[in-house]
Amino acid sequence: MEQRVSLELRRLRESIRCGEWAEPTAGLAPGHTQANLVVLPESHAYEFLLFCTRNPKPCPVLEVCDAGDPVPRDLAPGADLRTDLPRYRVYRDGHLGEEVTDVRALWSDDLVAFLIGCSFTFERALLQSGVPVRHVEEGRNVPMYRTSVPCRPAGRFSGPLVVSMRPMAPAEAIRATQITSRFARVHGAPVHVGDPEAIGIADLDEPDYGDPVTVKPGEVPVFWACGVTPQAVAVASGPPLMITHAPGHMFVTDALEDEQAVL
Amino acid sequence: MEQRVSLELRRLRESIRCGEWAEPTAGLAPGHTQANLVVLPESHAYEFLLFCTRNPKPCPVLEVCDAGDPVPRDLAPGADLRTDLPRYRVYRDGHLGEEVTDVRALWSDDLVAFLIGCSFTFERALLQSGVPVRHVEEGRNVPMYRTSVPCRPAGRFSGPLVVSMRPMAPAEAIRATQITSRFARVHGAPVHVGDPEAIGIADLDEPDYGDPVTVKPGEVPVFWACGVTPQAVAVASGPPLMITHAPGHMFVTDALEDEQAVL
Repeated sequence: MEQRVSLELRRLRESIRCGEWAEPTAGLAPGHTQANLVVLPESHAYEFLLFCTRNPKPCPVLEVCDAGDPVPRDLAPGADLRTDLPRYRVYRDGHLGEEVTDVRALWSDDLVAFLIGCSFTFERALLQSGVPVRHVEEGRNVPMYRTSVPCRPAGRFSGPLVVSMRPMAPAEAIRATQITSRFARVHGAPVHVGDPEAIGIADLDEPDYGDPVTVKPGEVPVFWACGVTPQAVAVASGPPLMITHAPGHMFVTDALEDEQAVL
Repeated sequence: MEQRVSLELRRLRESIRCGEWAEPTAGLAPGHTQANLVVLPESHAYEFLLFCTRNPKPCPVLEVCDAGDPVPRDLAPGADLRTDLPRYRVYRDGHLGEEVTDVRALWSDDLVAFLIGCSFTFERALLQSGVPVRHVEEGRNVPMYRTSVPCRPAGRFSGPLVVSMRPMAPAEAIRATQITSRFARVHGAPVHVGDPEAIGIADLDEPDYGDPVTVKPGEVPVFWACGVTPQAVAVASGPPLMITHAPGHMFVTDALEDEQAVL
C-alpha cells in the first residue's frame, strides 16, 4: 500500500499532523482521492450507514472503520483520522461547537469513523480536460449550499441535500458531466445545472459553507452532491456527538483518483 | 411509481405470487431491474450492511427495508418480498434448509430485507449490442461459481466471492466491459476474463449454483461479481436465520434498468 503514497502526500499529511497546514485541501497532493469524515457513536452507526445507502449521491461510502479504530486500514493504513485532517468540526446534539485541528481528546472506543468520497477528487481530471475549477483558480474554498431537496431519511437521520458549485460555460458543463460520470464514488455526475432557485438556493454569493467564487458572463453554475450533507443532517437530527471535517478541509487518502472510477 | 410497471411485469409478479412461476427470471419482464434478496435478523443488519459497503462489486445495495417491513417502498411499493420471488432458500446457522416459494410463515418484525443488484439487469443491453447471453439462448439458469477470491470481512460476515459467467468471443468481452461499466449498481464491469483457475474455478462444467452452459470454440469465459455471494458468506459465517432468493430466481423490481446506470 505504501508505494502509492506520493512524496507530496507524505509531506502534506506530515504538515497537517503537526498543525502547520489548517487550510482547505482542494488542489493539494493531486492524484489522490479526498474524503469527507463523519464520526458517530456506535449506537448511531447502522442508521447512518443506512442513510448513506439510501443517499448514494451525497454519501458514497469509501470506508467504515471498526468501532474505536482511528486508522483507515483500506484507504490509508499509515494515517490517523484524529490528527490527519487540517480542521475538524464538533457537533453536540446537532449544534456546532468548536472547530479544532486535532480530536484525540474527544476519541473513544465507542466511535465509528466513516469516510465519504469528495468531489475534489475529480478536479484534476476536469482541469486536465480544460474545464475550469474556479475556487482553485481564485485560491478560495469551494462554495457549498443547503438545498430544498430532501434526502431520503433513515431512522433518526434526515435533512437537506448539500451541493458544491463550480461555474463554467455550457459546453464545459457537458464535458464535466461526461468526466465526472466515471467518478461514481466521489459524487459522480452533477445533480443540477443552471437556475439556483430551482433547488432552493437564493443567492450564489452567500454559500452556507466555504467561500463565494466569481461566475463570469455566459457561465452556468453546475452543482454536485456534496459530502457536507451529513453535517446538515446532524443539525436536523441531533446525535449527541458527531465529529466531521471542516467543510473543504478533507482527509487526503493514499488511494489514487482512478480507484474511485465506475465499478 | 405505478406507471413504470409494465404489463409484462404485472403479469409476471402475479404468476409468481400465486405460485404458477417458480423458475429463473433471466430474460423475463425485460427493461426492469432485477435484485438478489437477503433477509437477516436486525441483530445482524449493521454487520451485513457493512459487509456490503466493503464489497460493493458483489453486494451493491439497492434498497434496505425497515425492520419487519416486507414491502420495498422505493423499488416496488406494490410488492411483497415474502411472496413475490419465484423461489426462496432458507439458511439456519449457515446450513441450507428448505427451498420454498413463499416465506410468510417465517416472517417476523425482527427481520430486515436487503435488495442487492443482479446482473440479469444488464443482459438486455448486452443482447441489444449483439453480445450473446448463453444461458438465455439455452433456456438454462446462469452458471455461478464460488471463487478463491476472499471478500473483505465485516464483523461475523466473511467468505468467498461468487461470480456469474457468460462465454463470448474476445471482442464481445471488450464490448461487454464497456456496456456493463455503466451499470455500477448491478455489478458493473466484469471482475475476470479468461482462465477460470486463476480465480479458483476448477471446472466450468460444474457450477456451484445454476446450470452449466456451452462454451463455443474461440470463446472466453467472462466473470461478473454475483449477488449470490451473501449465500456463500452465510455458509461461512452462520447467522441463526437467513432467507435469500434461490440463485437465478430473482425479485423483479418496478425500477427501470437504466436507473442502475452510473451515479
